[in-house]
Amino acid sequence: MEMADALHQRGLSVTLLEMADRVMPSFDRQMGALLQTLLEEKGVCVKTGIKITGIEQKPSGLTLNAGKETLAESDFILIAAGARPSAELAAKARILLGKTGAICVNEKMETSVKDIYAAGDCAETYHRVIRKYLYMPLGTTAHKQGRIAGENAAGGISIFKGVVGTQSVKIFDRVAARTGFRDEEAIEYGFDPLTTDVETPDHKAYYPGATRIHIRLTGDRKTGRLLGAQMVGRHLAEVSKRIDIIAAALFSGLKVADLLDLDLSYTPPLSSPWDPVQMAAMSWLTQNK
Amino acid sequence: MEMADALHQRGLSVTLLEMADRVMPSFDRQMGALLQTLLEEKGVCVKTGIKITGIEQKPSGLTLNAGKETLAESDFILIAAGARPSAELAAKARILLGKTGAICVNEKMETSVKDIYAAGDCAETYHRVIRKYLYMPLGTTAHKQGRIAGENAAGGISIFKGVVGTQSVKIFDRVAARTGFRDEEAIEYGFDPLTTDVETPDHKAYYPGATRIHIRLTGDRKTGRLLGAQMVGRHLAEVSKRIDIIAAALFSGLKVADLLDLDLSYTPPLSSPWDPVQMAAMSWLTQNK
Repeated sequence: MEMADALHQRGLSVTLLEMADRVMPSFDRQMGALLQTLLEEKGVCVKTGIKITGIEQKPSGLTLNAGKETLAESDFILIAAGARPSAELAAKARILLGKTGAICVNEKMETSVKDIYAAGDCAETYHRVIRKYLYMPLGTTAHKQGRIAGENAAGGISIFKGVVGTQSVKIFDRVAARTGFRDEEAIEYGFDPLTTDVETPDHKAYYPGATRIHIRLTGDRKTGRLLGAQMVGRHLAEVSKRIDIIAAALFSGLKVADLLDLDLSYTPPLSSPWDPVQMAAMSWLTQNK
Repeated sequence: MEMADALHQRGLSVTLLEMADRVMPSFDRQMGALLQTLLEEKGVCVKTGIKITGIEQKPSGLTLNAGKETLAESDFILIAAGARPSAELAAKARILLGKTGAICVNEKMETSVKDIYAAGDCAETYHRVIRKYLYMPLGTTAHKQGRIAGENAAGGISIFKGVVGTQSVKIFDRVAARTGFRDEEAIEYGFDPLTTDVETPDHKAYYPGATRIHIRLTGDRKTGRLLGAQMVGRHLAEVSKRIDIIAAALFSGLKVADLLDLDLSYTPPLSSPWDPVQMAAMSWLTQNK
């Protein structure tokens, strides 16, 4: 989607073909719908539920097929079909792989074979919220893991503290960001989640330039533990760095109620005395009764 | 300073007279200097070390005097001379005041007299980092304290978890924000602080629109504990919501090294795989040897 934005902004006519039944399936449906509307408003042609079966070179250009149907003719096709771990070398060396297909590592990023370390998109990632290893390939994680593997390989002692599942993406003038778990994921890991929505001005509405930020907050009904958040908004950094407040809270295992106690910065052009993150927490607490 | 910005943007000629030897004395000298340069570049006349002794109404307008010297003639004077607690009513009722002159409260915002609560600019504030009561009147704190006092007065049980000293201010196209303690404050509270600087692009420099963000990070040399940060930068929310990452870390008592482990959001238009906050932490750790 970030590429659809970049290409479209260079004056190209862009069609986005998505295999899932909606764009941005790593976000909840209502967040994806906000983004699909945005893409369409900007003139990107969006088609969902499309499984590409072939690409043909024809005199008129490249053709994308889905079964017998010809979907789009194009001068240029950009394929982003997800990520799978490239762990063949490790498998041949009899290094243990996880159920995810990625290389098993311990907290030092050491593999099952002594003195051999793995890091980045080929390796599993420790998730701090559920204390389990998952496959979540991301640049930020690769940087952290690589540094730790390197320090340990060089004789140091360094521990990977784990991810909490933070991602952000810029699409035209909006940012979508998430961290932690959504309902369906939280249920899978044994939580009893509640997810609630707020849509609130990103700063005091009396100060010019306020736009609305949509926050979906997920917490565990029984324990009140914070489990995750999704945000879509227009002021780029306000969304991306606001998700990081939640990411920092998840790192420390805070409860939803603790968000109300955070001493967050306020000045009218940039927030409210209760930051939108705190309004989301209030809404969650009110509904978890 | 926020008012100097607002008035200047409305086409008024603005002079800022500051009693301290520099603008923004609640920030370190080098951060204040960045802001003074900005004000002057924008055409605000800045005079520091000026103690106003009187204001006179003359036919030509209002005149500000410092001793025998006439400093400025003006149609309009805006006085921001700091805040002192207004606690006379409490004192008359024999409610205990602290050394700060503000009303002593406990964690329920209850005063020394049973069933009488105080909150906001008249009351002291519990500081979470040093576990002491200080006078730090701010809107965010007043909102939190008021809610807690109200809940307790109405028969609930609610605890004020304390501030960490977060503030932000917008001045023209820049934001200055701080949280926690600076060196001189940290020494006063028994820490052995080290403060280090980084100036780094706010996002990947290859992506258009990157500007530099200046971060000063303070930690305790012996324990590695995070004590505070100051930031000045151009992208408004990037600074204000980035200080909130530090504020959330201070709330949970994290160490400087823990900042490297935070799973912060990254996409090239908005950050780097190591967020500027983490680059500041790396710089601190390298210098604390």
